Amino acid sequence: MTAASPRTTAQDAVLALLLEVTGTPKPGNVDRHHDHDDLRFEHFLAGAVGAEPAFRSVPDRPLGETFRRAVEGMSHQRGGNTQFGAILTVLPLAYADSAVDLTPTGATAVVESTTVDDAVGFYRAFDAVDVAVDDPPQGMADLDVHRGGDAAGALRERGLTLYDVMERSAEVDGVAAEWVDGFPRVFEAAERIREDDGPLPDRAARAFLDTLASDVDTFVVKTHDRETATRLRERARAARDGDVDPADLADDLVAEGINPGTTADLTAGALFVALRRGVAV
Amino acid sequence: MTAASPRTTAQDAVLALLLEVTGTPKPGNVDRHHDHDDLRFEHFLAGAVGAEPAFRSVPDRPLGETFRRAVEGMSHQRGGNTQFGAILTVLPLAYADSAVDLTPTGATAVVESTTVDDAVGFYRAFDAVDVAVDDPPQGMADLDVHRGGDAAGALRERGLTLYDVMERSAEVDGVAAEWVDGFPRVFEAAERIREDDGPLPDRAARAFLDTLASDVDTFVVKTHDRETATRLRERARAARDGDVDPADLADDLVAEGINPGTTADLTAGALFVALRRGVAV
Repeated sequence: MTAASPRTTAQDAVLALLLEVTGTPKPGNVDRHHDHDDLRFEHFLAGAVGAEPAFRSVPDRPLGETFRRAVEGMSHQRGGNTQFGAILTVLPLAYADSAVDLTPTGATAVVESTTVDDAVGFYRAFDAVDVAVDDPPQGMADLDVHRGGDAAGALRERGLTLYDVMERSAEVDGVAAEWVDGFPRVFEAAERIREDDGPLPDRAARAFLDTLASDVDTFVVKTHDRETATRLRERARAARDGDVDPADLADDLVAEGINPGTTADLTAGALFVALRRGVAV
Repeated sequence: MTAASPRTTAQDAVLALLLEVTGTPKPGNVDRHHDHDDLRFEHFLAGAVGAEPAFRSVPDRPLGETFRRAVEGMSHQRGGNTQFGAILTVLPLAYADSAVDLTPTGATAVVESTTVDDAVGFYRAFDAVDVAVDDPPQGMADLDVHRGGDAAGALRERGLTLYDVMERSAEVDGVAAEWVDGFPRVFEAAERIREDDGPLPDRAARAFLDTLASDVDTFVVKTHDRETATRLRERARAARDGDVDPADLADDLVAEGINPGTTADLTAGALFVALRRGVAV
């Protein structure tokens, strides 16, 4: 059995973000051995440290407001969007850990209790940073996240909670799908990390590859197309199964500009759960 | 001109520790591309995150107590002593930044105002982690830092402040020398980082090499001998001047087990000063 974490919930949230970007190779993403041209490892360090004060207000402040504050804090670096999706994944888990319990049931209780104000906070977070998202469905232009805080009126008029917003994105967004489904991929990857051996970043990298080989990365669908994302899943399977060196896949994806960001977000969530459950660094 | 930092003093203290271990190559030290066998990059991540709550109590709690709490927090990882010296370097600068001003004069005012209680806190920090230090001078066995908190009686009896303790170590310890001399190497390296171009970790690595080429690293004197340390300074000069590839020197030093830890501590201090003075990440 493992002991509980020696750190606070907020400290483990920050450490999960830091360990996520450290694990290597995480094909296509910034990691300890890979940078993108304008998005570098140190931007993720500053992003994680910038989000820290907001994590400390869990569970006392509402989730949507905390999310907005975390993203604003994250944005004080030159890389742009470093951890928007990772924070969106970790935050409800942090609330579950602090106020309910850190299980699929606890996390579901947290997300289902979000309010219209939480939805407004979520939209306001888009004012702080440029996030790659799809255009809204027809008839939903007033809920385009690019409107940021200006969408508050439309959210209130329709009475949409943050859970409602996530439900509407669950088919096209892997993080939203976790919110709606009880975080199954996150908890599964956390167990994989717990049961694995060796340095924790290496275990995170293996869990990342496993998730990438199992599910289509929705960020790749958004930034490229579904065909690229489906083909990526096959390439990840080859790497996971030992037919391709994961390090080579990593180099190829950086060169091709394919960045499976959603899988990284889920890995951050898995690291948070693993740390809270006592996995030692 | 640069703007002020968008982060709090505590956030910049943590970020300085994270950026310090990221800069590469920092010959002989753990960095983004180098681990030691039992002391790995992720131990430094957990060390920095662990120290964070203590940094937040600056300047309200006494320096010695804050130092002990920071080191205890730092110790919750399996690598052992990751940032004892870096925290000892950054902490008085954080007090200067919060309560006086972040200049050699301000830092000197902070260290000169330390008390006997601060000295006791410093000694108690040694209870949390195994730190490589010299044996105490003859007649000072009751002040051996290995005694940790048990030395409290001897410190009180002799009326030694933390500044007094540092003064007695300044000849053999590079961090203690900074305390006593007004942090000249730290502020010089901070200016170098400010004036340099490119990604911040690269600038930190160049400042590290410059410091290593200028001064004998006292941690290498302690863990090896003066000859090794003097020879290391010459090797660092060759790397700084382009006669040797710094990356090759880094690989050699890791293989030889030579770890210029004091120079890394001073680099962490320099990064803290640079961040507070508005250098952007």
